Amino acid sequence: MPASDRISQLRSVVRRTTIAESDRLSARLNKRVILASEAFQHTGSFKFRAAYNLASNISASHIIAASSGNFGQALSLACRLLGKRATIVMPETSARSKIDSVIEYGGAVDLVDTMMTTRQARVEELSAADGAAFVASAFDHELVIEGNSTLADDIVDSGIAFDAVIAPVGGGGLTSGLAMGLERLGVSAAIYGAEPMLANDASRSIRAGVLVANEFEPQTIADGARTLSLGNLNFEILSRSLKAVLEVSEEDIEDGVRLLFGLANLKAEPTGALAVASLLAHGAQVAEERVVCVISGGNCDPEVYARILAG
Amino acid sequence: MPASDRISQLRSVVRRTTIAESDRLSARLNKRVILASEAFQHTGSFKFRAAYNLASNISASHIIAASSGNFGQALSLACRLLGKRATIVMPETSARSKIDSVIEYGGAVDLVDTMMTTRQARVEELSAADGAAFVASAFDHELVIEGNSTLADDIVDSGIAFDAVIAPVGGGGLTSGLAMGLERLGVSAAIYGAEPMLANDASRSIRAGVLVANEFEPQTIADGARTLSLGNLNFEILSRSLKAVLEVSEEDIEDGVRLLFGLANLKAEPTGALAVASLLAHGAQVAEERVVCVISGGNCDPEVYARILAG
Repeated sequence: MPASDRISQLRSVVRRTTIAESDRLSARLNKRVILASEAFQHTGSFKFRAAYNLASNISASHIIAASSGNFGQALSLACRLLGKRATIVMPETSARSKIDSVIEYGGAVDLVDTMMTTRQARVEELSAADGAAFVASAFDHELVIEGNSTLADDIVDSGIAFDAVIAPVGGGGLTSGLAMGLERLGVSAAIYGAEPMLANDASRSIRAGVLVANEFEPQTIADGARTLSLGNLNFEILSRSLKAVLEVSEEDIEDGVRLLFGLANLKAEPTGALAVASLLAHGAQVAEERVVCVISGGNCDPEVYARILAG
Repeated sequence: MPASDRISQLRSVVRRTTIAESDRLSARLNKRVILASEAFQHTGSFKFRAAYNLASNISASHIIAASSGNFGQALSLACRLLGKRATIVMPETSARSKIDSVIEYGGAVDLVDTMMTTRQARVEELSAADGAAFVASAFDHELVIEGNSTLADDIVDSGIAFDAVIAPVGGGGLTSGLAMGLERLGVSAAIYGAEPMLANDASRSIRAGVLVANEFEPQTIADGARTLSLGNLNFEILSRSLKAVLEVSEEDIEDGVRLLFGLANLKAEPTGALAVASLLAHGAQVAEERVVCVISGGNCDPEVYARILAG
């Protein structure tokens, strides 16, 4: 199937991103801030774009992924909608609400004791047991990046004028998708990645010109960015597309969640607040005036959220 | 100006309502639930529709209103955009954040000691001092109702299929606007009002066939519904248009806020959660399958919201 057909098909299934402007947030950040929120996407994050595009365009009927977060939920629903089977490998210490969400969306949860074995080892075990199964990466695959590129279509189709886009960086799937999407649409805009300072491998990789990995999973509150490194494909795309990576402190991430709550009535998960948070510390580094901040998702446990609000 | 021109003009200024569907919320409530959220409207609630339509279609250049909540903020911004002056009478015990919001949107705040005088008396005093000023009701005026009717245009234009609409009832401005809008558009759908049990004057009025008032301002957590009674115009419209008024307990209102947070990633103020909450207790009374729940606004202090989440 040609790419244009895959993209049309995907866009008929995903929900359009929600464009929300907030005069108060713009005034606070000294920019014309345009929010593009994926919190109301199927399964509550942009990951559904990637998961559905992947699951619908590979022949395997069983897909295995290691994910304790949004990709697991997204892949579970995508597989259910397509009559396929998803197995999601999660640490047995995962929050009950995350396990329940995967099950609710139709995925099979495989819990591992990460003191005894790594998630990766368990994925290999499961894959060896079912030779026809496909092992999915949440970011390092062309179909994943292409799926995420449809967020650029939504932003451009909304008709808003913008000079820059800022989006969170974990494995780099979202930002590389945005870069490919804007390129495909012939729209020129500066693209910035917003990354937790505690998990600044993308920033270090791009500075070094080679892929640098964190030694262990960084314990940032932005749990969607707790990746060891960018994917290979993502690194290659981001090296030529990103204007800069903005590093965000944990304090600014929490401030970002509070600003979105207080000034824009938007519930964001901490990872989803990275773009807005990056403007708190690095607004001066962003020369552009009309900035799309991508809110990558809204899934956040009430306990965590209430604690941030009380912050 | 003919009504159709006023409506076109207003629709060019207001933000489209945000349509969000949630499969998990639908599953929980045994309905096809479609959320129409006004939390991202200018000033964070539907009230901007009413305030702008009023302020732009009367000749007075100074508008006075008693409001400690969303109408005051909406009127302040509407007047600023139109080069008019807004004076908002608020109790001196109002939350600092609400006072600050009115000032931020350009309104002049007039604080009254409600132990010494009523807000109404103070409004009359101010009005006597400026004979050219217009005293605005937040619900009981044709232009207010007409402004709110544009929410029906947004819902219908979104292309979603629906059989019923549920919206919160305080003074009745929103529900009567929806009724007039759907009538104007020739769209037939059942309309339900959702009202706090603690402030059930609309329910009692419609049952009795005469306007019944609460003896004092009801202390429901849904502060947008703390009105003494429906307006006269609103009562007349609602008497013939509402299929039923659903009374909602304080517990269900808080559950509604939590469900919207947990299953739909939506920040609603307590009043904004009334429609969803009404389906918790009265779902069986709503015969229709595809139900639009209007989230009237999203403005809620972080302290109140965190306490509800901790529930």
